[in-house]
Amino acid sequence: MAASAYARLLRQLCGSFSNQTQAFENPPLFAHILITTRPVPQLERGSLLLEQAYAITPSTPYRIRVLRPELSEGQLIIHNMALQEEQRFWGATGDPALRASIRQEDLTPLPGCTYWVREQGDGFVGEVEPGCRCLVERKGQTAYLVSHFELFPDRMRTIDRGHHPETHEQLWGSLAGAFEFERTDDHSAEIPDPWLAKDLETPGTKSGESSRL
Amino acid sequence: MAASAYARLLRQLCGSFSNQTQAFENPPLFAHILITTRPVPQLERGSLLLEQAYAITPSTPYRIRVLRPELSEGQLIIHNMALQEEQRFWGATGDPALRASIRQEDLTPLPGCTYWVREQGDGFVGEVEPGCRCLVERKGQTAYLVSHFELFPDRMRTIDRGHHPETHEQLWGSLAGAFEFERTDDHSAEIPDPWLAKDLETPGTKSGESSRL
Repeated sequence: MAASAYARLLRQLCGSFSNQTQAFENPPLFAHILITTRPVPQLERGSLLLEQAYAITPSTPYRIRVLRPELSEGQLIIHNMALQEEQRFWGATGDPALRASIRQEDLTPLPGCTYWVREQGDGFVGEVEPGCRCLVERKGQTAYLVSHFELFPDRMRTIDRGHHPETHEQLWGSLAGAFEFERTDDHSAEIPDPWLAKDLETPGTKSGESSRL
Repeated sequence: MAASAYARLLRQLCGSFSNQTQAFENPPLFAHILITTRPVPQLERGSLLLEQAYAITPSTPYRIRVLRPELSEGQLIIHNMALQEEQRFWGATGDPALRASIRQEDLTPLPGCTYWVREQGDGFVGEVEPGCRCLVERKGQTAYLVSHFELFPDRMRTIDRGHHPETHEQLWGSLAGAFEFERTDDHSAEIPDPWLAKDLETPGTKSGESSRL
């Protein structure tokens, strides 16, 4: 059951998403954003490359990450990693050769930024682990990230906010509400079969440790 | 002095504006927006067509208005008018022939939505008149608009929020802060000379009355 949830999480994450409907229904409160997530088979089990960009500039993502869902002691989590010299990999979600060039050593764990995930209906909800340790900088000001997502078979809802590390005051984020993405493409067929095998519970790992394949 | 402020306000409003820098520095919190404002000489003195659109869809503005600055009893105001069957005029800021087809009868005053304006440094600040009467609808929910702008010779800052008509709770709007536009083009040379004449103080009018030309 739990292993199957892991496979389902992998599948639901692997897609292309767009909030075009929301952006066009609510001008000018929501930028039009594209998210694409694809598996990177040469990396550790479950490694998914994510690129997030304004629709107007799809080839220059403002966020590029490797996400790695893992079933750790019965708990679904998603490791969250940055890429070193990330510009090298811009566009890799649409470029198989570039994607194939990503090595495990190109990844940098983002401490405190692991998502904790639970099943909800046909989908999942997740949020950044407790501790206020997922620090992000915006215009020279440090904030901790409060990030929440809801994943459905055909859509995804996300909300990110930055809070002051000491006062906990909200520094940035959308008061207009969550971003509402529709799935415009499904890339789950690219997931290597062994990643979806039911019998594997990966051991609890710290980021950077290799998990069992 | 006051008449000159009126001419200066007209000139500063007539331009093209973009918040590209802000959008790209703050992903994904600010949509990339374009605003263009141009005089419409066949309409009442001071009538300016404004179109506001997502940069990704510049030809389908989400807001099209005729603004009409006026000096009324020594007070600068900006009348705010919608266009009937507005789709007829989409793109008119970039299409002189289409712009020339707008008639006074195509305009609908927006009661309660007049801006009150005052000089500030080399520019102006303005906000929707008091009274919470500028009602806007978003997804079937009525809100009153609280709208504020600051106009500088080379840029403009705007913030719009919707509040509940009874509880005054903020229903929508950017917590990320104001939109910051840079002026990318100046259309003030298109303003008819008589509109800039110094001696004319237009009489106080209610929207819909014709002002002195």
